[in-house]
Amino acid sequence: MTGTVALNGEVRRLEELRLGDFLQSFFFGAGFFETFLIEEGAPRFLERHLTRLQASLTAHEGSVRAPPAQALTPNAVRESLRQCLAADAGLGPRFTGVGKLVAGDGHLLLTFRPLPPHHEASLREGLALEHLEERGYRRGDPLARHKSVSYLRQYAHLGRGTVFANELGELCEAPNGNLFFLLDDALVTPPVEAPCLPGIIRAVLLEERRWTDKPIEERTVRREHVEHAHGCILTNSVSLALPIPRLFGRALPHSAELARSVRALVEARARLEA
Amino acid sequence: MTGTVALNGEVRRLEELRLGDFLQSFFFGAGFFETFLIEEGAPRFLERHLTRLQASLTAHEGSVRAPPAQALTPNAVRESLRQCLAADAGLGPRFTGVGKLVAGDGHLLLTFRPLPPHHEASLREGLALEHLEERGYRRGDPLARHKSVSYLRQYAHLGRGTVFANELGELCEAPNGNLFFLLDDALVTPPVEAPCLPGIIRAVLLEERRWTDKPIEERTVRREHVEHAHGCILTNSVSLALPIPRLFGRALPHSAELARSVRALVEARARLEA
Repeated sequence: MTGTVALNGEVRRLEELRLGDFLQSFFFGAGFFETFLIEEGAPRFLERHLTRLQASLTAHEGSVRAPPAQALTPNAVRESLRQCLAADAGLGPRFTGVGKLVAGDGHLLLTFRPLPPHHEASLREGLALEHLEERGYRRGDPLARHKSVSYLRQYAHLGRGTVFANELGELCEAPNGNLFFLLDDALVTPPVEAPCLPGIIRAVLLEERRWTDKPIEERTVRREHVEHAHGCILTNSVSLALPIPRLFGRALPHSAELARSVRALVEARARLEA
Repeated sequence: MTGTVALNGEVRRLEELRLGDFLQSFFFGAGFFETFLIEEGAPRFLERHLTRLQASLTAHEGSVRAPPAQALTPNAVRESLRQCLAADAGLGPRFTGVGKLVAGDGHLLLTFRPLPPHHEASLREGLALEHLEERGYRRGDPLARHKSVSYLRQYAHLGRGTVFANELGELCEAPNGNLFFLLDDALVTPPVEAPCLPGIIRAVLLEERRWTDKPIEERTVRREHVEHAHGCILTNSVSLALPIPRLFGRALPHSAELARSVRALVEARARLEA
């Protein structure tokens, strides 16, 4: 992570921030976060990220202390992002990387990091998903639709090729993104009730409604449904669409093409909303 | 919270601690905590708390950075506790209150706070539990047996009179403690697989095996089983045993006597282990 951050719109250095000003988040995981792509200085889908963040804060008014309302507007975040990039020669106004917002303890903290190492290679090669974790997710869990800093369940499974399933054996999501499966008749993703995070890229795809000749749909997905899948992608705000070349021991040769095509579609949408 | 803390055994001021040294806990809830009672300068059940903390760290070696091993011994924690009490006139060597340990980011942080306001009155009056929350807990969830700082689910329900149940309708725990129900034939508490936290006071009671003429047992408890309960208590390391005067709309007149009696039993055990 880089040392330049913004706190409630003000440019600061990370090393100036005191733990004591973030105790509810630190002790109790009482905060929410958003991770978003920044390309050439421009944050992607910022309005959508802030709408989701606000929805989580509103749903937890009694337990998570929201930042000042004026810090949560797209214009305020764009302006503090611009000031951070200008203030730090290591970032610069045409910075490409990852932005992160954390809301809690009455603060909005904006931080930056470079793209993951080997980002381009990982977009090509993707990630095999071989491990089904079916002991923790609960269908309809209201908390799972919020991206909270109570994130240990997901964090502990990062990089392990995990797919989370619920008590009914329905597939939910990966620790770092939503899943879309290319089936005979549609490109499908589990419903939010599975549960899964209502991902930003997921929503963009569902709004598109079609991929080539197939509908894009929310649908309950069980393991047996994906035994004849033609492809699979993982979507999140940094990778946009990551190919899944292997799923539970089966090769999915069409995932790479699916990921490329979906990424182009999402990038076009991002430019429209910029 | 008081301003004097210990970090890896060294006395510090809370305001000196930097957020940047606790980023895995802050961003991802990747840490574990223990809350324990301090009476007249003596920490209660410290060995048991440290054993549980170590078990959680061992189970998450790949994702949570443990403190130095030498900071996690009972002697080391007793010594840093002693130094903190001596260093802060507001605490003093005969401090009675609550200690908290947080392990994560390669650190062990020890903090202090006074007993909750109206502590004695709340031990007498207890807490009505009227709300059954049955949408989030999952039977056998391996993460639920660890007291992690990914604590938002519990934190959001504090003070709301909530009992969590799993997908099979089995009662699990309250957000701030384990539950024991006085039934016709036994004093029973849900099994860890329900899931519930393997609470320290819960373990002390299960080791006792008997309360008056009744066995103390782990047993699956459904809502219909408690419709004829005679009493109920909530156990945790600060209150030891809190009476539940009302449970799902029914008065439980024997809860107060049960809580008093259990508290005396736990206090005797605490003195033996001091």
